[in-house]
Amino acid sequence: MNPRAVIFDAYGTLFDVASIAEACVGITSDPARLVALWRAKQLEYSFLRALIGPAGYVDFWQVTADAFDFAAQVLDLSLSEGDRRRALEGWLHVRPYAEVSAALERLARDGRACLILSNGSPFMLDAAVSAAGLADRFTAVLSVDAVHTYKPHPRVYQLAVDALGVPAEEQLFVSSNGWDAAGARAFGYRVVWVNRAGAPTERLGFPPDATVSDLSALPLLVDHPQTEARPAEPY
Amino acid sequence: MNPRAVIFDAYGTLFDVASIAEACVGITSDPARLVALWRAKQLEYSFLRALIGPAGYVDFWQVTADAFDFAAQVLDLSLSEGDRRRALEGWLHVRPYAEVSAALERLARDGRACLILSNGSPFMLDAAVSAAGLADRFTAVLSVDAVHTYKPHPRVYQLAVDALGVPAEEQLFVSSNGWDAAGARAFGYRVVWVNRAGAPTERLGFPPDATVSDLSALPLLVDHPQTEARPAEPY
Repeated sequence: MNPRAVIFDAYGTLFDVASIAEACVGITSDPARLVALWRAKQLEYSFLRALIGPAGYVDFWQVTADAFDFAAQVLDLSLSEGDRRRALEGWLHVRPYAEVSAALERLARDGRACLILSNGSPFMLDAAVSAAGLADRFTAVLSVDAVHTYKPHPRVYQLAVDALGVPAEEQLFVSSNGWDAAGARAFGYRVVWVNRAGAPTERLGFPPDATVSDLSALPLLVDHPQTEARPAEPY
Repeated sequence: MNPRAVIFDAYGTLFDVASIAEACVGITSDPARLVALWRAKQLEYSFLRALIGPAGYVDFWQVTADAFDFAAQVLDLSLSEGDRRRALEGWLHVRPYAEVSAALERLARDGRACLILSNGSPFMLDAAVSAAGLADRFTAVLSVDAVHTYKPHPRVYQLAVDALGVPAEEQLFVSSNGWDAAGARAFGYRVVWVNRAGAPTERLGFPPDATVSDLSALPLLVDHPQTEARPAEPY
């Protein structure tokens, strides 16, 4: 592929959202279920607020808090303010996937610029990147907060083009969220979908250029396009 | 409230989406689960395609077919083309809720203009309204297809303002979908949320003016604002 830069989504792609369940132990007997409901609502609220437009925008920390409160109400949890704060702060030390550090190190050694482009608020992203010891690995950490909307709005994907002065088609966008991969492809990036869970392909009309099961294959894929073992499925 | 017109959402508000399970009997042992997955994915795809923008638009029939195929793959269903067609055609004779006909009749008798404003494609809406025997009850059936986006994009809510030449604040918007109620309120309508399922209030920042548990209370609510038994919860 030989892209001039590699743009990473954060939550689900670099960071394991399921690890936030550790911050919810003690407030529910089924932390994984709480986090699954929470994450689904967080994404839904981000889509809805972006569609409502400028009047609907609040940052991702507020979206995350709103989604948590909804999920906690669905599960009928009775929580103290301390319980709630500890759960929310789980996002500030969300755990990176095991292969992330080595993959980023290899990309850096090969001279690739690596960036993050995420829905997260700047302070959420800074905290998670620092806690994971990955701060030195990224040329820039870009947040949707600069444009007050959410993925997959095209204004978000424009941020990395503007930051680098490099056209989208010369960059590689990497996301585990199928809808984010579709949005980035619609915008014009080359796209790798990290299908960690073996999920069905999203029917959104913009299939990824390649699919991998985790990030360990990424450095080779970037250097040697013939290693694209799994071509994108036709839509 | 005394609104000059009452604008209804269709699916979930007038029509019981769960009734589409009847068109799925015989293709899965759990039709209700298929329809729940299908409906959630249908809405998610509508949000995502609207955010991607004009290049992402396909009509709601295509969105519905794409969402069905995804849900069927999640459930690992092996379906014939006939099975698939019968399931999709369930949307063309989706059943109205029991109280809908009487509520619309009462509103008509009181001289209120009633309209539909829906994500549905025009032919889907026409089919469902006709099958339910409700065609005479509506002044107009408006589809997002006229503006190639989806709710809660403001361009959709503008459609009823343009059709009637009446400002949003002089109309009443009625939806069972909490996010649709929030989008309509953000746009400027007076809003009644039909919370049929006793769902938690959506944390989107635009609470409804009133909440009812079904449409039977609507004619009284419209005529006599003091009958608003349940004021909107503070956000």
